[in-house]
Amino acid sequence: MSPASTEIISFFKSLQDDICQQIEAIDQGHSFREDKWEREGGGGGRTRIFKGGIIEKGGVNFSAVSGAMPAKIAASLDLPENEFLATGVSIVLHPHNPFVPIIHMNVRYFETSVGKWWFGGGIDLTPHYVIDRDAQFFHSMLNSACDRHHSNFYPKFKTWADDYFFVKHRDETRGIGGIFFDQLKGEESERMDLFAFVKDVGNQFMPIYQELISRNKDTSFTEDHQRWQRLRRGRYVEFNLVWDRGTKFGLDTNGRTESILMSLPPLASWEYDVQVEKGSEEERTLSSLKKGVDWLKA
Amino acid sequence: MSPASTEIISFFKSLQDDICQQIEAIDQGHSFREDKWEREGGGGGRTRIFKGGIIEKGGVNFSAVSGAMPAKIAASLDLPENEFLATGVSIVLHPHNPFVPIIHMNVRYFETSVGKWWFGGGIDLTPHYVIDRDAQFFHSMLNSACDRHHSNFYPKFKTWADDYFFVKHRDETRGIGGIFFDQLKGEESERMDLFAFVKDVGNQFMPIYQELISRNKDTSFTEDHQRWQRLRRGRYVEFNLVWDRGTKFGLDTNGRTESILMSLPPLASWEYDVQVEKGSEEERTLSSLKKGVDWLKA
Repeated sequence: MSPASTEIISFFKSLQDDICQQIEAIDQGHSFREDKWEREGGGGGRTRIFKGGIIEKGGVNFSAVSGAMPAKIAASLDLPENEFLATGVSIVLHPHNPFVPIIHMNVRYFETSVGKWWFGGGIDLTPHYVIDRDAQFFHSMLNSACDRHHSNFYPKFKTWADDYFFVKHRDETRGIGGIFFDQLKGEESERMDLFAFVKDVGNQFMPIYQELISRNKDTSFTEDHQRWQRLRRGRYVEFNLVWDRGTKFGLDTNGRTESILMSLPPLASWEYDVQVEKGSEEERTLSSLKKGVDWLKA
Repeated sequence: MSPASTEIISFFKSLQDDICQQIEAIDQGHSFREDKWEREGGGGGRTRIFKGGIIEKGGVNFSAVSGAMPAKIAASLDLPENEFLATGVSIVLHPHNPFVPIIHMNVRYFETSVGKWWFGGGIDLTPHYVIDRDAQFFHSMLNSACDRHHSNFYPKFKTWADDYFFVKHRDETRGIGGIFFDQLKGEESERMDLFAFVKDVGNQFMPIYQELISRNKDTSFTEDHQRWQRLRRGRYVEFNLVWDRGTKFGLDTNGRTESILMSLPPLASWEYDVQVEKGSEEERTLSSLKKGVDWLKA
């Protein structure tokens, strides 16, 4: 493995540590449960699960798996037989309060013994209720992080997130998007610059979510708001199990099921043909779940 | 379309009517909501949804869609350009009481203008708690129905159900199986015999489920039983969205989403790394969720 990979793995581990520590500091009196696991073919991970007073269910996972690349995966990537390393941090947090959004982040790095390497990842937000000023704050934080590295990054990765986090069978986006990127690569000389970008993305996670928590965690809510939250969580399940390539890939290649499915909500519901009242907050939210919204101007 | 198809469609419609009527008679004071829908390319359906005192959420759907076969589907079936008819009844019932099992039935018929036709379908049972004598009753009813038509049917279709209703990423069956068959076809002279078998399967549905309801609907249960029910429903969601070919096919080919996803439970939950107590009913259930159990001898 390359010298870069050692540094990247070490950053991902400390990113996981930092985020877990900060979540424990915000949601006091609760702590992460850690499960360390090893992969038969090489490498392993640290799955960390949280159940608190603000976060109803969350996972902050680190993994670094390596070894001979399974033939199926090599074929899907158009690569010859090789040794690979895949490492990253994956986070999904489901809050109690329906006015606090669900957040997801993934940052990852991949390299092979045949000279290929790339980064991937993103952060996206799934509010049960879309709040314009929160959406604007969220996207402007991502926009700034991107702009520090390349002026094309935000528009490109924002559009990519719109396309990726799309629940095709519902004709709606999962939430208000964010940024998404994959196979981010370049000349050898660019590897550490791209790593600096990915670090910056990773380091934005807590400042963003802490602000969204503090703005909304004390908003009062009713049973109707919770019913709506459970329905929106149902859509989250639909996206993750039907469309998310990462989840499908993991389940299909004998990944660690409990770590992969930590993304699923504590409680979700399905009702037939849900209708929303005209002019309601629920209707406003639904009408926002589409591609191409310029949230910076919201 | 063939003369047979008219008769088959008419049977499926009356099967839907009969089953709905019987459910309304059992779960008194509640009635089905019906949505009639049309498919752009031809045909349509009658989606019927139920919310009662015994059945918490259920769907009993009929459809008969026809027209030019989408190229994607023709390719997947290895067929040239053609006109097709696909008709059937699909049922999923989620009961309130955790001791009443979830039941699923599908019976369907397919024919094309290029001379191909076949039947498919099955009935399978997903108990939240496996009760041996119920499992035996369920399988013996299916066994009898199969034996009236062909001595190979039950063993063959029972094994097929074990293989089909398998949640690979959990290494467990969805429930206690039942029967499953697809592309059931033969010489032209056999079409009506196979139809007679499919009719027999369809007509077993209510006698089976009525008995299972009457045995268990008044069993008292606790919050712990309901928690387990929600977790098992979570697995049901995982099977349907990750592995069920019918669901994937429907969502992928612009099927009517609300009709397809009527199969999802009213309320489901996910907890990280659920453990069951040694010797508990939950542990007994989990240990039964495997292929190859001879339920006739349970």
